Amino acid sequence: MASTEVTGPMADAFSPSERQALIEEIVRRVAARLGQAPPSDGSDCGCTATVLPPAAEPHAETKSMQVMTEGGAVRFGTDGHPAEACATLAGLIDHTLLRANAKPEEIERLCTEAKKHAFASVCVNPTHVPLAAQLLRGTPVKVCTVIGFPLGATSTQSKAFETAQAIADGAEEIDMVINVGLLKGGDYPAVLRDIEAVVASAQGRLVKVILETSELTDDEKVAGCVLAKAAGAHFVKTSTGFAKGGATPEDIALMRRVVGPKMGVKASGGIRDCATAQEMVARGATRIGASASVAILQGEKGQGY
Amino acid sequence: MASTEVTGPMADAFSPSERQALIEEIVRRVAARLGQAPPSDGSDCGCTATVLPPAAEPHAETKSMQVMTEGGAVRFGTDGHPAEACATLAGLIDHTLLRANAKPEEIERLCTEAKKHAFASVCVNPTHVPLAAQLLRGTPVKVCTVIGFPLGATSTQSKAFETAQAIADGAEEIDMVINVGLLKGGDYPAVLRDIEAVVASAQGRLVKVILETSELTDDEKVAGCVLAKAAGAHFVKTSTGFAKGGATPEDIALMRRVVGPKMGVKASGGIRDCATAQEMVARGATRIGASASVAILQGEKGQGY
Repeated sequence: MASTEVTGPMADAFSPSERQALIEEIVRRVAARLGQAPPSDGSDCGCTATVLPPAAEPHAETKSMQVMTEGGAVRFGTDGHPAEACATLAGLIDHTLLRANAKPEEIERLCTEAKKHAFASVCVNPTHVPLAAQLLRGTPVKVCTVIGFPLGATSTQSKAFETAQAIADGAEEIDMVINVGLLKGGDYPAVLRDIEAVVASAQGRLVKVILETSELTDDEKVAGCVLAKAAGAHFVKTSTGFAKGGATPEDIALMRRVVGPKMGVKASGGIRDCATAQEMVARGATRIGASASVAILQGEKGQGY
Repeated sequence: MASTEVTGPMADAFSPSERQALIEEIVRRVAARLGQAPPSDGSDCGCTATVLPPAAEPHAETKSMQVMTEGGAVRFGTDGHPAEACATLAGLIDHTLLRANAKPEEIERLCTEAKKHAFASVCVNPTHVPLAAQLLRGTPVKVCTVIGFPLGATSTQSKAFETAQAIADGAEEIDMVINVGLLKGGDYPAVLRDIEAVVASAQGRLVKVILETSELTDDEKVAGCVLAKAAGAHFVKTSTGFAKGGATPEDIALMRRVVGPKMGVKASGGIRDCATAQEMVARGATRIGASASVAILQGEKGQGY
């Protein structure tokens, strides 16, 4: 396999047609492997080991989540008191408000709740990043924002600029939308470059790649995961919450199997109660995006923001 | 009124608090005037004449549309043969495909149809602008794209960059989404700056400001129109097509009354047949955004893209 081994940035090592052929081959092999049983030792399924660059060292937070998930099974509060188990989800939740009509006072409330419940982050549109960063300064709650959101169909240059601007404004985590149309059209090199540009622009901050799974076939989901991992992103994420569907347990399990145990998987879109959130974690999610976060913690069914 | 007269860019003439107070006063007066009968001479309603900078000279195309609309009434094909009247709508239509999952081959088809039927433009996401510009080079069909779309909640700097990049890629018309949350929060100076930045970045290209009317109260629609006009945009536009509602005849009539006869008004969102398009024009629309454009021309009901 020496001839297809990637040791440096794919952009330098391959011509566009070679990149296209290589990624197609990766996707084909990963998809074929998914028909087999997952490894029982909790290791990477091995599907990508020979041709992909080594995965980025996971962030500390991702590492701590790994302790909870082992090969798709989970040691996470499912035998405890339901309310307590629900409350312990807080550290996995990106407390999210992405409606276009969100007013500054709603962002303030979101941040207050995030501090109170110790959510992992607040996830807000870029226009609200300066306010959220100001309100959360000196707290453990991070500011997460969205790039090319929710269609993923802005130019690569704009996604890179938007990322740099968001970081300058105080964002610490970047949830970018993959170029869904180019992914479906099979232009893998362009999709890869798009993610690579955001990862570079993020300068080490956590980058999550939203696949918008409800718009994709299983093969396209696999390709999206492979491309996100190859581009050096830290998470794959299911959904924007603005398409026809959200996270499903099956998609989380699929994504976890493709990316292996070291990369983050975020379940988002339609998660409004504790049981659903717990099932996502059991299937391999290490982060939950939700606007009904407070209800989830309290074991209630919520509408959220 | 000399003390509130604006002779130069508002950014230079007023402090932030003065700008806020001034715009609030404008919105209040315009809203009050809307309770009165519209002028019968086809002139600007006068509501904004004393305190707003002069409207930009309308583009040639906007001028030709003005010939068709007079004070809300219209001399447009409604007494002709229906099929012929529908066909003559072509020059008003932005032939639109903004789905996230649009593939390049669908953009190619969109451009082929636009050339065949002589639509005003194709309206595509920024990622597809280079392809559309290449396919439409040397034709009268313009390339229109969308900025901060569909939430309008990206940073002002990102909207400006995205606009410049889109123009570098070949875009000739810019449909930007207003910052809905800041508009609803009443931060008019920030909304104004956001539009001004895109207008500046567009360097004379047509800029349309999408208000997302279904998310707004009537007062907020008035404020959006006033701000778009004050910022030097060329059109106000109803909807992204991604929110809960689209264009209504009532909103078109309201927008036309607020912006006066010289500014463009684009009806978009849910327009899928000739009769609906004609009604929008009768109420004052000078451009129609539609994905069912071919069906509209043929007098059929269409699903479009």
